[in-house]
Amino acid sequence: MSKILNIGLIGAGRIGRLHGDILARLPRAKLAAVAEINLSDDCKQWAQGLGVEKITANPDDVFADKSIDAVYICSSTETHADFIERAAKAGQHIFCEKPIHTDPVAIKSALAEVEKAGVKLHIGFVRRFDRNHKKVRDTVASGRLGKAHIVKVISRDPEMAPVEYMVDSGGIYMDMTIHDFDMARYLSGSEVIEVTAYGAIMINPAIAEQDDVDTTIVMLKFENGAIGVIENSRAARYGYDQRTEVHCDKGCVQVSNDLIDNSMISTAEGVFVEKPTWFFLERYHAAFATQSKDFIDCVANNTAEPVNGMDGLMAVYIAMAAKKSLKEGRSVKISEVM
Amino acid sequence: MSKILNIGLIGAGRIGRLHGDILARLPRAKLAAVAEINLSDDCKQWAQGLGVEKITANPDDVFADKSIDAVYICSSTETHADFIERAAKAGQHIFCEKPIHTDPVAIKSALAEVEKAGVKLHIGFVRRFDRNHKKVRDTVASGRLGKAHIVKVISRDPEMAPVEYMVDSGGIYMDMTIHDFDMARYLSGSEVIEVTAYGAIMINPAIAEQDDVDTTIVMLKFENGAIGVIENSRAARYGYDQRTEVHCDKGCVQVSNDLIDNSMISTAEGVFVEKPTWFFLERYHAAFATQSKDFIDCVANNTAEPVNGMDGLMAVYIAMAAKKSLKEGRSVKISEVM
Amino acid sequence: MSKILNIGLIGAGRIGRLHGDILARLPRAKLAAVAEINLSDDCKQWAQGLGVEKITANPDDVFADKSIDAVYICSSTETHADFIERAAKAGQHIFCEKPIHTDPVAIKSALAEVEKAGVKLHIGFVRRFDRNHKKVRDTVASGRLGKAHIVKVISRDPEMAPVEYMVDSGGIYMDMTIHDFDMARYLSGSEVIEVTAYGAIMINPAIAEQDDVDTTIVMLKFENGAIGVIENSRAARYGYDQRTEVHCDKGCVQVSNDLIDNSMISTAEGVFVEKPTWFFLERYHAAFATQSKDFIDCVANNTAEPVNGMDGLMAVYIAMAAKKSLKEGRSVKISEVM
Amino acid sequence: MSKILNIGLIGAGRIGRLHGDILARLPRAKLAAVAEINLSDDCKQWAQGLGVEKITANPDDVFADKSIDAVYICSSTETHADFIERAAKAGQHIFCEKPIHTDPVAIKSALAEVEKAGVKLHIGFVRRFDRNHKKVRDTVASGRLGKAHIVKVISRDPEMAPVEYMVDSGGIYMDMTIHDFDMARYLSGSEVIEVTAYGAIMINPAIAEQDDVDTTIVMLKFENGAIGVIENSRAARYGYDQRTEVHCDKGCVQVSNDLIDNSMISTAEGVFVEKPTWFFLERYHAAFATQSKDFIDCVANNTAEPVNGMDGLMAVYIAMAAKKSLKEGRSVKISEVM
Repeated sequence: MSKILNIGLIGAGRIGRLHGDILARLPRAKLAAVAEINLSDDCKQWAQGLGVEKITANPDDVFADKSIDAVYICSSTETHADFIERAAKAGQHIFCEKPIHTDPVAIKSALAEVEKAGVKLHIGFVRRFDRNHKKVRDTVASGRLGKAHIVKVISRDPEMAPVEYMVDSGGIYMDMTIHDFDMARYLSGSEVIEVTAYGAIMINPAIAEQDDVDTTIVMLKFENGAIGVIENSRAARYGYDQRTEVHCDKGCVQVSNDLIDNSMISTAEGVFVEKPTWFFLERYHAAFATQSKDFIDCVANNTAEPVNGMDGLMAVYIAMAAKKSLKEGRSVKISEVM
Repeated sequence: MSKILNIGLIGAGRIGRLHGDILARLPRAKLAAVAEINLSDDCKQWAQGLGVEKITANPDDVFADKSIDAVYICSSTETHADFIERAAKAGQHIFCEKPIHTDPVAIKSALAEVEKAGVKLHIGFVRRFDRNHKKVRDTVASGRLGKAHIVKVISRDPEMAPVEYMVDSGGIYMDMTIHDFDMARYLSGSEVIEVTAYGAIMINPAIAEQDDVDTTIVMLKFENGAIGVIENSRAARYGYDQRTEVHCDKGCVQVSNDLIDNSMISTAEGVFVEKPTWFFLERYHAAFATQSKDFIDCVANNTAEPVNGMDGLMAVYIAMAAKKSLKEGRSVKISEVM
Repeated sequence: MSKILNIGLIGAGRIGRLHGDILARLPRAKLAAVAEINLSDDCKQWAQGLGVEKITANPDDVFADKSIDAVYICSSTETHADFIERAAKAGQHIFCEKPIHTDPVAIKSALAEVEKAGVKLHIGFVRRFDRNHKKVRDTVASGRLGKAHIVKVISRDPEMAPVEYMVDSGGIYMDMTIHDFDMARYLSGSEVIEVTAYGAIMINPAIAEQDDVDTTIVMLKFENGAIGVIENSRAARYGYDQRTEVHCDKGCVQVSNDLIDNSMISTAEGVFVEKPTWFFLERYHAAFATQSKDFIDCVANNTAEPVNGMDGLMAVYIAMAAKKSLKEGRSVKISEVM
Repeated sequence: MSKILNIGLIGAGRIGRLHGDILARLPRAKLAAVAEINLSDDCKQWAQGLGVEKITANPDDVFADKSIDAVYICSSTETHADFIERAAKAGQHIFCEKPIHTDPVAIKSALAEVEKAGVKLHIGFVRRFDRNHKKVRDTVASGRLGKAHIVKVISRDPEMAPVEYMVDSGGIYMDMTIHDFDMARYLSGSEVIEVTAYGAIMINPAIAEQDDVDTTIVMLKFENGAIGVIENSRAARYGYDQRTEVHCDKGCVQVSNDLIDNSMISTAEGVFVEKPTWFFLERYHAAFATQSKDFIDCVANNTAEPVNGMDGLMAVYIAMAAKKSLKEGRSVKISEVM
């Protein structure tokens, strides 16, 4: 493998382009190929602007390319597991957006292929690379506060997408809360063993057609004895609300939001401070860059992936258990869905 | 009734003396009598210092005193219901510390007596009189944020009392979370209809002997469709952590803690800000004063009690349901324990 | 002297009544007499409500009363020095509102009389008793941050009083900044030796008729080598802005304002937090109580006054130097006005 | 001129490389040449890593290169004016680090050459591109708070550089406060007409040999009637402290620091939050990128420079006046040094 990693991007939608823009600026990476099934002129122009040499509508052109060292799988969720297998068979390292798949069978098959091929597989749980959440995790992991008692994650999207857009999302737990399930494992350093979910339709009644909710609270039990709670809303209205907190034996570590700026305007009418940054593109922009740098480092140095396939699988199991809990109105052990 | 309310205090422990000190400074109240079963010299001295004329070890001396307009029941929990009945029969208005009783039958009997007598009965859920929580409630009640979606209460005591002290506490839900159950009803303006409790023993293993936990998270369903979550720890370590938050259709209102002071000390070692005030005596001192003032106003003006007997009963029902949920490992409807 | 201090209040305007209300609640003080030249029915009613026995329009009735242990001088500024002398001659301890006088000759004469009589004289620089400013001072005095480099005081009144009301104020430096000059000495633990003042008329042009300004910045040099700056506006608009900060060799200590409450309301329109408390009655209410308690303690225990006559005199000297600096457009040493 | 701007960098020290790294990532710029008098292997390697084609020890190689559209002058201060003239004569647009020169005669000569050549000249007052300070400026400029009364700038470096390093700095006003003088003009939208400086040597006595101070406060008078104050320390210890505030007729706008992260860790020992980002490389990283983007836009679109030569000259005049004020112990009008 050359010192500069040749990378192929599979899927150049919003998230794919975000990764592409970042890769174009990383010194040890070269965005060499882009495959996008719906290859528009706009997409071509974007890729050309980054100096990409191979631009194609066929992902196979990337998997077949011996000069490609690693792929970024940013296509739609149902293609992830299949593309992981094909990349693994081609001996290419893999960065895959979350979730791997909504079906654990497909995930396990893909992970087996990855293991056989001996390639790296990183799952894109980008929040682990945010300096704030990382500070919570590092503080807990350092042991300076003693063992964790209560793990808390608040995650509210700024606005709800149209319901038709959510048809293939897999529901709130697989699409949105899955990030928080990963956070819960990451912050606590322990496995989730049981969940109980409460859900409500408060924002858009049409979500009921999808057998889904738009507002949810999920309680968690961890293997190490701690308990936790995740809270989600599809519509914060004031921006992307992303707070985490762990209360431990000797005290508490918590992080608040990144704000648009640090201003305070005081008048007779009141005192105004700024809103949180709008959405994940703004809030986690630096985290996306760190994530890709860390992935490239792990390939270059042949070290463990920052987030591996088992992390991807566990988050899916928890999402499945949460969905089952909401449906059946009872606590569900993760072992029930494994 | 004279313009100045003659008040008898029943029970002069920590909380009773707190009320006594406040009553001694209220212009429209006169602390006329103190009854304390364990009448120590120290207690006598305290009462004399406030100019109390009747100091007795027998509560009956207060109930029998025709000059007493109202009583403050601050004795141990199991006496509350009985004393309410006796005060009611004596035609005395009643301020009763929470909880009324741990048995709804006793509560209902007491409430019936109160109704028959036509006296006022206020239950001491003091947090409703805190300017911060009141701001959350008033913001929600104003409707400016639309309907409530998610109701959140964080309540952590600074340190855990010795387990032997907790023998008669009725357990964490009846003793500590009961305040938060009342907050949930107060902030949302809606009845809780179901709870699910997760509990853990993280601080002191000896609490297991009491069939109790020291750390808990309770999810709530409200009659109006909202969902909520309460989180408790018996040992914050850094002070009394009391935060509330309601996320609504148009945004979120939340309040943070009162701090010891507003200082920030910045050095090469780090930046230090102050801790929350230590415990309820510090945090809710102003709220206790406001509460008594409001109670005295309701008697003087013959208006509704700020917190009435039904409020006291409902909080007990929710606490019972939470205890049952924890024990049986399932969600429990409040109607099951009614 | 009896264990309970018998106190006579001279002047029952806004500030006098504030002190009276506090004294009425202090266990070791008794508000025994009130003298107010413009003795209205309203004033009489107020004093009677507090159980004051002697209510008079003639201050001499207080000075002549052998049962009065101490007086609170809260009358108009020009009477302070004379009343101090009369109280001292009567052997009464003295709490005097700031400033003692605008003429150092009168102050020195009064201080001489106090010294001769051996009574206590406390000057009402109430901010020294605020928990926030005290934290700054204590942090600096502890030496943990090393020596002070830069001392900063921000003080903005919420709204400007009508100009006619300010005729006898002595101007911004004697009336308003004088508190900040005292803060500068208190926080730094060092004497101010030079000032340079910039002033502007930004709020009400009519203040020019008083040969005064409504906005000012004053730089300070301290005996210990530190430098400092005070900033004042007569009209913050958003409440009483009272911030202090000292930057030292090892870092910085600063305090922000007390707010009406700790709420944060987040919506699509923006994020709102509360304003600072409105004015000194709200912001320094607890400080006024602590101040009186400390004064009474100093009398009872025959210890040094918390703020003594020399403190009162020094603040007046600095105010005179600032006024001179503004007028003459140059730096003025305090020794020039001594 | 091609659509992509060919840029030559003159001076590849710390600040030059910062600009180079940014230019290498800007889509409409190409870092085509680097000239560095002390051309080390390390420097060559850095430039090669960015794909720079012309790497030279002789700035003339850049001025003589007809393919170069614009130069970034990041060499030592005393060369700036001369290099501006040479670039202007070569018809190259110019980005020049502050200050242009410490001698107004040299500045004016350079500006005349720029005007004759009709090229763009941008001065690198990077703080204008920081989202926080820009928010203060935009709020004031919008007029929503009415006219400005008081303009405040706090700027403290984290640690003092060794005194020998400061020999050619031109002193604190020309080297450090010059940024704050520019901020004062930028925030207020008005010219500074007078200054008074207080200075102290609190951090390193050796600075006295340079006839300089390490701690200073400077009061400002503005043409529009407002007054202001700048405060500087060479050693904050806790990071780069950069706060600005403008109090206006209807209220106040202020900005606090960017912090390392948004964490709060609460324990029995205290509550810890993070320090400000360490120094300008961290705090103004995004601002440096925005600045270069804006400079390239102004060249491409032939619009006014974001910060022009006159801005550079005015800041130097104010610095000269501050130095004179400190030396002569009096207020100095800017017109005195023009």
